[in-house]
Amino acid sequence: MTTSSTSIRTAVAGATGYAGAELTTILRRHPHAEVVAEYSSESFSVDALASSHAEVVFLATPNEVSAEIAPKILGLGMKVVDLSGAFRLRQAGLYPKWYGFAHEHPELLDEAAYGLTEWCNGELKKARLVANPGCYPTSILLALRPVAFLIDREQPVIIDAKSGVSGAGKKADVSYSFAELFGNFKAYGVGSHRHEPEIRQGLHLGEKATLVFVPHLLPTVRGILSTMHVGFTHSVNDEEIAEMYAKAYANAPFVKILEPGRLPELKDVVNTPRCDIGWRLLQGGRRAVIVSVIDNLLKGAASQAVQNFNRMYGFPETEGLQ
Amino acid sequence: MTTSSTSIRTAVAGATGYAGAELTTILRRHPHAEVVAEYSSESFSVDALASSHAEVVFLATPNEVSAEIAPKILGLGMKVVDLSGAFRLRQAGLYPKWYGFAHEHPELLDEAAYGLTEWCNGELKKARLVANPGCYPTSILLALRPVAFLIDREQPVIIDAKSGVSGAGKKADVSYSFAELFGNFKAYGVGSHRHEPEIRQGLHLGEKATLVFVPHLLPTVRGILSTMHVGFTHSVNDEEIAEMYAKAYANAPFVKILEPGRLPELKDVVNTPRCDIGWRLLQGGRRAVIVSVIDNLLKGAASQAVQNFNRMYGFPETEGLQ
Amino acid sequence: MTTSSTSIRTAVAGATGYAGAELTTILRRHPHAEVVAEYSSESFSVDALASSHAEVVFLATPNEVSAEIAPKILGLGMKVVDLSGAFRLRQAGLYPKWYGFAHEHPELLDEAAYGLTEWCNGELKKARLVANPGCYPTSILLALRPVAFLIDREQPVIIDAKSGVSGAGKKADVSYSFAELFGNFKAYGVGSHRHEPEIRQGLHLGEKATLVFVPHLLPTVRGILSTMHVGFTHSVNDEEIAEMYAKAYANAPFVKILEPGRLPELKDVVNTPRCDIGWRLLQGGRRAVIVSVIDNLLKGAASQAVQNFNRMYGFPETEGLQ
Amino acid sequence: MTTSSTSIRTAVAGATGYAGAELTTILRRHPHAEVVAEYSSESFSVDALASSHAEVVFLATPNEVSAEIAPKILGLGMKVVDLSGAFRLRQAGLYPKWYGFAHEHPELLDEAAYGLTEWCNGELKKARLVANPGCYPTSILLALRPVAFLIDREQPVIIDAKSGVSGAGKKADVSYSFAELFGNFKAYGVGSHRHEPEIRQGLHLGEKATLVFVPHLLPTVRGILSTMHVGFTHSVNDEEIAEMYAKAYANAPFVKILEPGRLPELKDVVNTPRCDIGWRLLQGGRRAVIVSVIDNLLKGAASQAVQNFNRMYGFPETEGLQ
Repeated sequence: MTTSSTSIRTAVAGATGYAGAELTTILRRHPHAEVVAEYSSESFSVDALASSHAEVVFLATPNEVSAEIAPKILGLGMKVVDLSGAFRLRQAGLYPKWYGFAHEHPELLDEAAYGLTEWCNGELKKARLVANPGCYPTSILLALRPVAFLIDREQPVIIDAKSGVSGAGKKADVSYSFAELFGNFKAYGVGSHRHEPEIRQGLHLGEKATLVFVPHLLPTVRGILSTMHVGFTHSVNDEEIAEMYAKAYANAPFVKILEPGRLPELKDVVNTPRCDIGWRLLQGGRRAVIVSVIDNLLKGAASQAVQNFNRMYGFPETEGLQ
Repeated sequence: MTTSSTSIRTAVAGATGYAGAELTTILRRHPHAEVVAEYSSESFSVDALASSHAEVVFLATPNEVSAEIAPKILGLGMKVVDLSGAFRLRQAGLYPKWYGFAHEHPELLDEAAYGLTEWCNGELKKARLVANPGCYPTSILLALRPVAFLIDREQPVIIDAKSGVSGAGKKADVSYSFAELFGNFKAYGVGSHRHEPEIRQGLHLGEKATLVFVPHLLPTVRGILSTMHVGFTHSVNDEEIAEMYAKAYANAPFVKILEPGRLPELKDVVNTPRCDIGWRLLQGGRRAVIVSVIDNLLKGAASQAVQNFNRMYGFPETEGLQ
Repeated sequence: MTTSSTSIRTAVAGATGYAGAELTTILRRHPHAEVVAEYSSESFSVDALASSHAEVVFLATPNEVSAEIAPKILGLGMKVVDLSGAFRLRQAGLYPKWYGFAHEHPELLDEAAYGLTEWCNGELKKARLVANPGCYPTSILLALRPVAFLIDREQPVIIDAKSGVSGAGKKADVSYSFAELFGNFKAYGVGSHRHEPEIRQGLHLGEKATLVFVPHLLPTVRGILSTMHVGFTHSVNDEEIAEMYAKAYANAPFVKILEPGRLPELKDVVNTPRCDIGWRLLQGGRRAVIVSVIDNLLKGAASQAVQNFNRMYGFPETEGLQ
Repeated sequence: MTTSSTSIRTAVAGATGYAGAELTTILRRHPHAEVVAEYSSESFSVDALASSHAEVVFLATPNEVSAEIAPKILGLGMKVVDLSGAFRLRQAGLYPKWYGFAHEHPELLDEAAYGLTEWCNGELKKARLVANPGCYPTSILLALRPVAFLIDREQPVIIDAKSGVSGAGKKADVSYSFAELFGNFKAYGVGSHRHEPEIRQGLHLGEKATLVFVPHLLPTVRGILSTMHVGFTHSVNDEEIAEMYAKAYANAPFVKILEPGRLPELKDVVNTPRCDIGWRLLQGGRRAVIVSVIDNLLKGAASQAVQNFNRMYGFPETEGLQ
């Protein structure tokens, strides 16, 4: 049980990347966190970490690095909140195809709490290992889960998502250079993006349901807007949809549901920890276009990690985030 | 019959807008066009035009203005290429709902040639009135028509399109100001965009087929990228699709079909008169994501108008455009 | 004398503009401020304000509006922090030329405290009326004042300043539209910008000294970078300059002086209340290029207003700003 | 003597960089040029070039590469237009400090024609080797040379220049990545930019005159705007300045002088081969702010190279550039 004067010793690995830097900034001003150690992905060592006496370690490291070091950190008796994809998928067998490496700790995939905060219950309080969701999946699952039981899985679920460039991380790569991307726009990773199995898993789409996920690269730095096209098994009206969302997010301080018919825009949420969601019904309520927006570095990474941290230690969910 | 030294007397109304300015620039350097008069939408008068002795008048004027003045210009014995939506829809009854005015010349809707150049045959040569297609419909119809007979109309045709800001024209409007749009992104006009009935008409979708058209506003000035999601009636492979496109555009100098699996990006076509098209097959060839890009002010407006002009007068289609 | 539980009743006029909105956001989360009333520039009325029982009123209103309503608000016994230029110049005679209106309350020009916070002493505590500095003058005066006595006034002081578009406010004006400004850059207001006499006054440049102030419009939303070119009366070295800055800003939480030879960039301060300053000596220390950066909506407007508010009421200078 | 049907065999080395790609595009549509060979900087070999039987070779290669291969190409009896800085400075002794390598062919520095086209006379016709000017120097020298004799060299010549990101070339470098530069702005290279000695040389500033050159990086891809601050030896008026420019550029198709008091903006020239120049007189005509704009990849590189090519072979200066 935590009290108002409790301060948790935290460490951050990968603190120099975009998400890691945001995370470190938030933790530094968090009233109940003390940042006792920071590492770049390169400078990290388990020995150094051991001597920091951190209670919880945030990993903003590459997938392979997280997969390798998280078990060791758990071995030190520290908790882990991993912002990479290393522990997000339940099935170890998916890792070779989607992530390019075989997963050596399937037992941790079973154990890890999938930290889509608004859909977590008591599991975060007990978790040793939290898999912080991907940025695209966060924007999509928050929007689709409240209406998921309505969705007709005989029809394809089509997701046309657009992300700012920071989603790709800090890259010394001509194809991410200013001169190549300014004023440009493109789809990428159709059929091969790592977030696709995570979305499929998060929607409990069976093997047979069709998911079309087309990510695009926006010529801006921050933010994701996902446009989701779904068919429903029966006709619904705006009031019913509004009620489903209201019920799902009655106690969610960082999810904002717009008035029926209104759609959110990216700038509404950039630099905020929020997810905003709107929809338009079509075909007499048999189909909808649902649009959600998040800041990919915050709700899509750092601020959601802190929401999870708050839940793990029993702090108010908004602590450090307002 | 035209000869290499032929020069056609042309006039432009709406020459100060973005599309009108591009058009005027192209016509001025066109070897077979002489720009004998230019008007802003405000300064235009039929009397002044009459004394210009133009042979063909390009209208880059608002829909209502074009609807009003085109019949008068035709009455002067001049030809008209209209870049607005005033003569694009066959059914006059659609105008009140989609354009906000009743159409007073349904006979001209019958007469007008719909100038999606690559899909025109002899009609441009005989046309008195050419309705230049909308920017979104151009990007969409060029991509979908070659595979239209394959498309399963029992499934929704879902089009997620994104346009640069110049598509909205020159606007003194806070919501189009730099400070509001820079770094922003949003969907708009879902279910109410004027190009929706034009796309439906151009795809010969019957009343029952579902078309979902979601335009978005990109934080850049020029270019449209349309992401199209279609189901097919039967399974196809890349070679078959490639052949359909190759056949459709064998003689189209401004349509470029990418290698199977490759998708175009916006910068490939900005400042060019081209439309680039790529696709990815999904579900074992039962479904595709098709992506096309154009410069909305060129292939989506001015350069397509000049392609049409070239065809009307028997000049090579590329004249003035390379 | 204020205590930790003190809460000051504040009102904001002009709360819907860019600076006003930032200000309102800050005040709402300020531990010692209560926002009891908000008005747009249009909806403001002195009567409504009177019934709000505010103690201090922030004006983010146009110059003429502030000039007219500030005296009335003071008449209600409320304090005023004015973010416009209405009370910045000491000499009433300058208003017709630079602001286009005759100033009707020269006595208030005498009384107003010029709120360049770091250079204020006790005057803010006693002030009824604070003139919050202009954005360009803030970036320039903070950089030049510590070395002002060194500057050779026989040589021109040349200031080449660049501002993001939000500096112009919310405008329904084609020349501030996205399509006109994206990818563009230009100088404007040479010899006629309202901040020029304010800079001249703030540097105590006499009539004869030459000030060249060339503002430019950057294709981004937020931030000002000022490049200042000054000659010195005698040769100095980096250590001496560093010491002058260190002394001037020893107790300034929001001014950051860079290591000798390093120059700040815009992104260092965007979305922060800070001013960062760097310099390069030239000509053997007889001349310098000094570069400063601020967020024009924060240190150049809203956060500096709150720094002033904190000083007026004896709160820590950083309260509500970290 | 060339005739209208003459076609010159040209080769381009460095054709994949930004300037090289622009150059190749122009040459391909040039009525009197045939591109017989293209090389990336990496794929270039003198042997391959020899077999191309090119008459003239354009080098859009790094400085060191140009310095090494130009003499060999001249040895093949081919002419060279070099877009790098390898042959721009007259004094070999400047190369180690500014370019980081010792120049091995000082005799070629004597021989090379400095191709600031508008200021060249017969030398281009005779040249074997043309040193195409740097982008910043082009924008600055075109603006200052017509008034150079007026400039008071006792006062510093202060140049505050701003360039789009393409000026740095195609770079796999985090500091040129989109995420780092979008919405950012900074000065760089104060006192160390390679174009500084070139500007000094081009203005015939002696050792003692002070030149302050501060380049900045604009968050856009194309274009340079240079703001120049100069004092005059005596007072002049707008008509006199206008006359000087008119005289200097009477026959210059690609220099546009604005009306007195008007200043050019970047978008006026982006994607054009033009340099636009404007000025404002200050201090009763004893001082001026002069502003010029160019597209750094065209007038600052590729189109100026083609202007030079046209002059070398006696083609009209505008051939291939309109």
